[in-house]
Amino acid sequence: MTRILYDLTASEDRRFSPFCWRTKLALRHKGLDYEARPVRFTEIDDLSDGPRLTLPTLEEDGRRIVDSWTIAEHLEAAAPDAPTLFPGGQDLARFVQAWTNTTVHPTLIRVILMDVFRALDLQDQAYFRPNREERFGMTLEAFTAEHAGALKAFRQCLQPLRAMLADRPFISGDAPAYADFIAAGAFLWAGAVGRSDVVEDGDAVAAWLARVTAGIDN
Amino acid sequence: MTRILYDLTASEDRRFSPFCWRTKLALRHKGLDYEARPVRFTEIDDLSDGPRLTLPTLEEDGRRIVDSWTIAEHLEAAAPDAPTLFPGGQDLARFVQAWTNTTVHPTLIRVILMDVFRALDLQDQAYFRPNREERFGMTLEAFTAEHAGALKAFRQCLQPLRAMLADRPFISGDAPAYADFIAAGAFLWAGAVGRSDVVEDGDAVAAWLARVTAGIDN
Repeated sequence: MTRILYDLTASEDRRFSPFCWRTKLALRHKGLDYEARPVRFTEIDDLSDGPRLTLPTLEEDGRRIVDSWTIAEHLEAAAPDAPTLFPGGQDLARFVQAWTNTTVHPTLIRVILMDVFRALDLQDQAYFRPNREERFGMTLEAFTAEHAGALKAFRQCLQPLRAMLADRPFISGDAPAYADFIAAGAFLWAGAVGRSDVVEDGDAVAAWLARVTAGIDN
Repeated sequence: MTRILYDLTASEDRRFSPFCWRTKLALRHKGLDYEARPVRFTEIDDLSDGPRLTLPTLEEDGRRIVDSWTIAEHLEAAAPDAPTLFPGGQDLARFVQAWTNTTVHPTLIRVILMDVFRALDLQDQAYFRPNREERFGMTLEAFTAEHAGALKAFRQCLQPLRAMLADRPFISGDAPAYADFIAAGAFLWAGAVGRSDVVEDGDAVAAWLARVTAGIDN
């Protein structure tokens, strides 16, 4: 089977999408080969004649599956004999996803938005700035003006993760699984644009992240 | 079996402990009879000759089980034929507990602390004020000075719950279970001290809370 993951990239092949990271970690967990094909913001329209795709999109022998959660469910069903993505059922991953999407990401973007912007090439910057300034209702610079406060808020919002890791090495228990990949995606997003410093050394979150991401590159 | 739940109370028999609520909802879910015996802050010392107990403490024929999570695990094992507290495994409940304890409660206490204080009788107020002022490092009044901001932050911090409820009636899926009881305890805490207004009418959280707590009183 030919398996292509359309994977959002910045300049210099920096793969920064937290949602694409979820899928790449899931594919690796399942032991499935794939090509992570880099796509810039301004290349997404070229992927489809119809409605604009969202990334990640996984293409298997020409069949496209869109949305990281849908892809995870597909991979779980398609590779039932590989290690499960949901060792305790899907509900933990659903709640971690709800928390990551509505709390972790919105808090982190206040910290790293300018880093994301600077990582893009000029053509993507020209798309990204007005798109995000309309979404946030202010300039990128205004949105990220309170950097120290934003970083403090981000580290504070990780408390549920720290509490979870107090008596287990992974969110999912003794081994990492999709709930971990969802949360880890946020830090891989930051790391790809040069902000590995959003977590302090010595934080239990840093040690967990190192365990989850050991051995990965793009 | 004689089953007594030592249940924290304010004046006028207002049972406000969010942790005791978790246990009462769990006992009800399991269909187990119990007496919820009211205990004021300044009566806790009288419960034991040894180290001060924490509430909830469940006493079954004289055997005491301390800590809401430990009690939930005990009830699940003791009544395996009753509806499960963990329909999708324990991990969802563990993460919801981590989130509730580290995010929801600390955010909510900024809103309702003075209401909790005023609900106590004078003897408990005399214990509560210095105990909490030492914990927070400031007066109760200073801790709750930014009321409007605190209420906004609380409603904002519920976003993961709203996201979870977008495609299911309960955190646990089609029926409520212990993960729901953990989160509901926070709102029952607020309600017991007269702050049912912390959630707005029309919020999906309000409708969920009504479903989880239908038919309960103390």
